[in-house]
Amino acid sequence: MKIDIFCAGGTIDKIYFDAKSDYQVGEPKVGRILEAYKLNIDFEVHSVLRKDSLEMDDQDRQTLKQAISQCDNEYILVTHGTDTMPETAEVLKDLPNKTIVMFGAMEPAMYKTSDAEFNAGCAVGAVQSLPNGVYIAMSGRIFEAGKVKKNVAEGIFEIKD
Amino acid sequence: MKIDIFCAGGTIDKIYFDAKSDYQVGEPKVGRILEAYKLNIDFEVHSVLRKDSLEMDDQDRQTLKQAISQCDNEYILVTHGTDTMPETAEVLKDLPNKTIVMFGAMEPAMYKTSDAEFNAGCAVGAVQSLPNGVYIAMSGRIFEAGKVKKNVAEGIFEIKD
Amino acid sequence: MKIDIFCAGGTIDKIYFDAKSDYQVGEPKVGRILEAYKLNIDFEVHSVLRKDSLEMDDQDRQTLKQAISQCDNEYILVTHGTDTMPETAEVLKDLPNKTIVMFGAMEPAMYKTSDAEFNAGCAVGAVQSLPNGVYIAMSGRIFEAGKVKKNVAEGIFEIKD
Amino acid sequence: MKIDIFCAGGTIDKIYFDAKSDYQVGEPKVGRILEAYKLNIDFEVHSVLRKDSLEMDDQDRQTLKQAISQCDNEYILVTHGTDTMPETAEVLKDLPNKTIVMFGAMEPAMYKTSDAEFNAGCAVGAVQSLPNGVYIAMSGRIFEAGKVKKNVAEGIFEIKD
Repeated sequence: MKIDIFCAGGTIDKIYFDAKSDYQVGEPKVGRILEAYKLNIDFEVHSVLRKDSLEMDDQDRQTLKQAISQCDNEYILVTHGTDTMPETAEVLKDLPNKTIVMFGAMEPAMYKTSDAEFNAGCAVGAVQSLPNGVYIAMSGRIFEAGKVKKNVAEGIFEIKD
Repeated sequence: MKIDIFCAGGTIDKIYFDAKSDYQVGEPKVGRILEAYKLNIDFEVHSVLRKDSLEMDDQDRQTLKQAISQCDNEYILVTHGTDTMPETAEVLKDLPNKTIVMFGAMEPAMYKTSDAEFNAGCAVGAVQSLPNGVYIAMSGRIFEAGKVKKNVAEGIFEIKD
Repeated sequence: MKIDIFCAGGTIDKIYFDAKSDYQVGEPKVGRILEAYKLNIDFEVHSVLRKDSLEMDDQDRQTLKQAISQCDNEYILVTHGTDTMPETAEVLKDLPNKTIVMFGAMEPAMYKTSDAEFNAGCAVGAVQSLPNGVYIAMSGRIFEAGKVKKNVAEGIFEIKD
Repeated sequence: MKIDIFCAGGTIDKIYFDAKSDYQVGEPKVGRILEAYKLNIDFEVHSVLRKDSLEMDDQDRQTLKQAISQCDNEYILVTHGTDTMPETAEVLKDLPNKTIVMFGAMEPAMYKTSDAEFNAGCAVGAVQSLPNGVYIAMSGRIFEAGKVKKNVAEGIFEIKD
């Protein structure tokens, strides 16, 4: 079984640059997360964008969508900033013949307390269990695209009424 | 959404006792794993057995099965030692109206390099995505009960021919 | 044995704020580091400044110096940003009757790969082993104030010729 | 600056063997601990014994002492099980022209919560700060050989009356 992983940046990939004393989107971390375990899956990481998701625009979303559409694989993960993950999920919704699970992290993967590994696990478990469609795996829940929002105050994802 | 988690012991819960200089099955660790993240799920932990799974017998499996059968919830996780997890999965197979996902860890959850968090993520993602039945979430894969074995030499779970 | 710890900020205390998507100096982390272990020392944490050390000026250094001078304890640790730690060490040099060991971290204490715990250990080991004076504990070495510089390109502290 | 590190086993090096479901003394972990940071010291690791320190006898201590005596370096660290570390410290006491700092860990270095990194830091800081002699760096304290005991009930090292 093979999973293709498309990376758009976001908090999960943020790293600290000492020289500049700030925090920027670095290389995708999902590959290192999955390589850390002895898994019985193959995966390929595609670094498409390195953006804070608040800075993503329509063109960025089309770039991401096109990259995914050119991949033959049915099993797709997308790492993405949390702030506009629900918007991007809706843009990806009409991609046919794929189960696409998006995830990210509330804290950078480099953090001791990051939710990145756990969220990656949720997404890997979900992508091979769900019918075709676009989903978000955050806060321990699997949400359908169009039925999910980020609750910024609480720091969780929840069902959109 | 609520998940009930039944714990049977195994490597995931093994702890080191300095006084005895050996390694024994301690309290379930899955609660601490899930409490470490801000999740949008409720869960309840039921400590049923604290056994290395090589020491589990038919009676133990019936005890575990009975505990699960008395729970009204559809969403069930089971933490279990890896060596006989496939055998126990088959025993649980005829429990109706439940999606049961079993997982454990190849290294104790206390280890820096443990797969416990990632496997817990896979199981949480799978339990809410799959039709009723019994499954094993190990090595990044979701296996159906009866179609999975542990490859001890490789240290992974794989499809049973 | 009691150690008083004066905190001036720096990379060791940097945290990531999701809302602002940047990285700021947070509360001192040294207390949490030491509380994580069962130690046979008492310690008290004094949060004096929360600054990137590139932003510290003469007034800040006098504020720090005065705070330390008002403490009766002989055993003093100072957490501090790495960029101007050697300058501050020279300012503290004429404080009498104290062994002062400064340290910080090249990566935030919140990072999985941070040197904060190890550096804290070096400083704790040194402060009770050295004669009165001001020292810097970084890169696994104990340097005397006035004889040390940060090699920014290499990311280490070294002896100043 | 170079440090020679002699390893005698103990909890710090204990690892979990899945196949045997028990816990044994593995390869020295101190090298990996120090390699994890960008340090300005050289070090060499000598694996002398791999024993739980409760199983060390007089011959083992002489083997360790002889190995250290054949090393020209003044700066010596010894990793050792905690239970008989004070006894071994007394045996090493008459080695001339060396500063020897012993340490170990109350929890295996492989553990997330291990004190191994912090203790290694204390020992590295102390070995370059102290006059020649034999010391133990545990529980955040530097003790002189002959004036220290392990308080098993409390899980700390303390001054021997």
